[in-house]
Amino acid sequence: MQKKKMFEVLDKGFVEFVDMMGNDLRAVEAARVSFQKGLSSKARDKKLIKYLMENGHESPFEHIVFTFRVKAPMFVARQWFRHRISSFNEISGRYSIIKHEFYYPQKMRKQDKVNRQGSLFGFDDEKESSSIEMIKRQTENCYDTYESLLNQGVAREMARMVLPLNIYTQWYWTINVRSLMNFLNLRADSHAQYEIQEYAKVIADIFNEQCPWTYESFIKHYYKGDLLIDKTGE
Amino acid sequence: MQKKKMFEVLDKGFVEFVDMMGNDLRAVEAARVSFQKGLSSKARDKKLIKYLMENGHESPFEHIVFTFRVKAPMFVARQWFRHRISSFNEISGRYSIIKHEFYYPQKMRKQDKVNRQGSLFGFDDEKESSSIEMIKRQTENCYDTYESLLNQGVAREMARMVLPLNIYTQWYWTINVRSLMNFLNLRADSHAQYEIQEYAKVIADIFNEQCPWTYESFIKHYYKGDLLIDKTGE
Amino acid sequence: MQKKKMFEVLDKGFVEFVDMMGNDLRAVEAARVSFQKGLSSKARDKKLIKYLMENGHESPFEHIVFTFRVKAPMFVARQWFRHRISSFNEISGRYSIIKHEFYYPQKMRKQDKVNRQGSLFGFDDEKESSSIEMIKRQTENCYDTYESLLNQGVAREMARMVLPLNIYTQWYWTINVRSLMNFLNLRADSHAQYEIQEYAKVIADIFNEQCPWTYESFIKHYYKGDLLIDKTGE
Amino acid sequence: MQKKKMFEVLDKGFVEFVDMMGNDLRAVEAARVSFQKGLSSKARDKKLIKYLMENGHESPFEHIVFTFRVKAPMFVARQWFRHRISSFNEISGRYSIIKHEFYYPQKMRKQDKVNRQGSLFGFDDEKESSSIEMIKRQTENCYDTYESLLNQGVAREMARMVLPLNIYTQWYWTINVRSLMNFLNLRADSHAQYEIQEYAKVIADIFNEQCPWTYESFIKHYYKGDLLIDKTGE
Repeated sequence: MQKKKMFEVLDKGFVEFVDMMGNDLRAVEAARVSFQKGLSSKARDKKLIKYLMENGHESPFEHIVFTFRVKAPMFVARQWFRHRISSFNEISGRYSIIKHEFYYPQKMRKQDKVNRQGSLFGFDDEKESSSIEMIKRQTENCYDTYESLLNQGVAREMARMVLPLNIYTQWYWTINVRSLMNFLNLRADSHAQYEIQEYAKVIADIFNEQCPWTYESFIKHYYKGDLLIDKTGE
Repeated sequence: MQKKKMFEVLDKGFVEFVDMMGNDLRAVEAARVSFQKGLSSKARDKKLIKYLMENGHESPFEHIVFTFRVKAPMFVARQWFRHRISSFNEISGRYSIIKHEFYYPQKMRKQDKVNRQGSLFGFDDEKESSSIEMIKRQTENCYDTYESLLNQGVAREMARMVLPLNIYTQWYWTINVRSLMNFLNLRADSHAQYEIQEYAKVIADIFNEQCPWTYESFIKHYYKGDLLIDKTGE
Repeated sequence: MQKKKMFEVLDKGFVEFVDMMGNDLRAVEAARVSFQKGLSSKARDKKLIKYLMENGHESPFEHIVFTFRVKAPMFVARQWFRHRISSFNEISGRYSIIKHEFYYPQKMRKQDKVNRQGSLFGFDDEKESSSIEMIKRQTENCYDTYESLLNQGVAREMARMVLPLNIYTQWYWTINVRSLMNFLNLRADSHAQYEIQEYAKVIADIFNEQCPWTYESFIKHYYKGDLLIDKTGE
Repeated sequence: MQKKKMFEVLDKGFVEFVDMMGNDLRAVEAARVSFQKGLSSKARDKKLIKYLMENGHESPFEHIVFTFRVKAPMFVARQWFRHRISSFNEISGRYSIIKHEFYYPQKMRKQDKVNRQGSLFGFDDEKESSSIEMIKRQTENCYDTYESLLNQGVAREMARMVLPLNIYTQWYWTINVRSLMNFLNLRADSHAQYEIQEYAKVIADIFNEQCPWTYESFIKHYYKGDLLIDKTGE
């Protein structure tokens, strides 16, 4: 199996494609159970996937399942873990010392005044480096305090409360394709926060590579976001 | 891959092992993410599985996922579909004509008077064959009526309403091992109906063969039923 | 509380509105938690519901929850129980004798040749009464056999296998409004089977009466079906 | 309705009991649907709840549903949001400025060497106040940096990455009693982190007050934790 692959995201994060079960044809087989039929010609099988997606028949896509290992800043993790129809196992800050790895943005974004929960690139050049510097300095201070507390004998689960939300965490993530498509609808979209968009795009690429028919139909008929539109060459 | 296998159940049913993702070591890897560690020695990995199961840490087992194709009587299907944390695609009696395949028991069971929802083997020998005959005759009549209605042009979705609950149906089923263990807790148990017990035992065998460490720990530390106890030779 | 009400459906079925928690304003409150704000003016609160629905922010509607008691033919129950994000407790044919209550259609429907899983009214008048008669006769025979088997001492869980799919069953059903809207998207639609459409329309009426703002926005911005469109007078 | 109540937890947190649907008798009614029966005498109804709990029949308890509003430190929120069978709406740090409210422990806990993910009271008296002081100072610095970044025009969603995990957040939470009991099994237990234990105990009290029969049976027959044992006076 050549499937295991790492994809770098942000400054220190990654998405590792650990494993998957099923593919385009599995969804076809699952759907054809309804008709008491199996696989057919390539053209008909692909057409069926299009039909399912156009008509909102999502259940056959639950039989395709992915497992990823993800490393991302904690504020990204908090958004990610809202996707309840999937499985998570995350680093425990109670059990082990959290490593000194923080997300430092390369570009700052200014507050969007129209979309009140959004941000815009084009931050004032002069202030940008000072802002990034401020984040770095603050973050280093936090980690120093974390270590001091540990050195004083404070329990790990307590000491971590001074760690900031840009610290990196890691988790195992298993999700079926139906739920994955909902993840992409929300996170591969310009209304999502930039940082999670970067992860969502990588997930989309892996999905596209492994399930090209499903991905193509998804983008044409079911996708509600705006970031992945170019990917199919339209 | 040598994994695809058929297992006969009851008179005309089956469980087909279609595919799976992960195994004992996958659960270990997922659990060790919490400690920021990976696989260790075989002995330690197995011990970790025991620890997880003993302490009710069920989430690492969500990363092991099975897909089956099942053929079973409709009254069994109705019990099966109550397991909501899993994925189903079933034959549609609206789209296609349901085949003439019925479950005919080889032995009848009498009403249990103590356990009001149970049944007991040891049915009166003289009445047994007449009871089975009654079921067969009734069932054939139902199917004749089904065909007559179809011949008169009645829609399939309406005509099927005369079909009895012992007719066979089929479905694709994807379920993670955490949810599968709950299925076995309820269905591989003498309080479940005999017919679904027969399926649950086959599912348990496949699970045992594919994930021997997890299965062994499951039976020892997490299993609430009574039918699978012998299987580990204790 | 004047909320408890029965609504007749089909020839012998019903939907009973047992209880609910929350209303339009609850969804507003839950959504405003995000902004650290509470209720505002009536106009603004209503506008927020519209905004949430238009933009696919479905989670605030999970805090409105309904409980119903439903009596419906078993083939309808089988479709209904596919909605996994809800809670069910159904009559047990293992524990008690299923009553002699069957769904007898008043009008037959013919097979739709275009939509292969659909049906059409306009059944041949001459054949209609004979078809209905055939269903009744068959159904009575089934129930006679059921009783004979019980009289011979056959366990209830076995005897019921001769019962046909038009027998009535009952269940308690608890569902939040987000999941309820998905139910209506699929079942209050001309692609659903006529019989479950009849139930879905009653559920929609109750939802409309209890959560008028949410219902109105649902129909305008989120509803994917076609049966409920007239209801808001458009 | 006198139900709305606030309960203080930790130094600045709370659990607000917003609403509920159903009670002990609702679970009884839902369970009796299986037997085609309704409520009976008080003694029999209570006995049924005991029977359900002893035998792991959990589904009738899904028809009792609670809504809470919770204010807790973010590291507590992260543990809480792992409970997927429930509904959440949380303050958005993208949409609004997060308030200056931090959890400052009154007592420090030292690392438990035996239970590697645990902590113990009995922290060195001399170091305790300096540790608490360290947390406060660090936290204040973080908030200062947060404000400086906002003043420079940095988007809220970016600026918040310097905020530490002891900052308070708030959310709406709706959960049925089956899932609530699982929450208590894990969180009202000495293996859970002290801070979430404090919340779990308050949730347990509210549950006890509203559903005394269910709570009593839960503690006796289904509860896997250790913190709530005294509560029933045994």
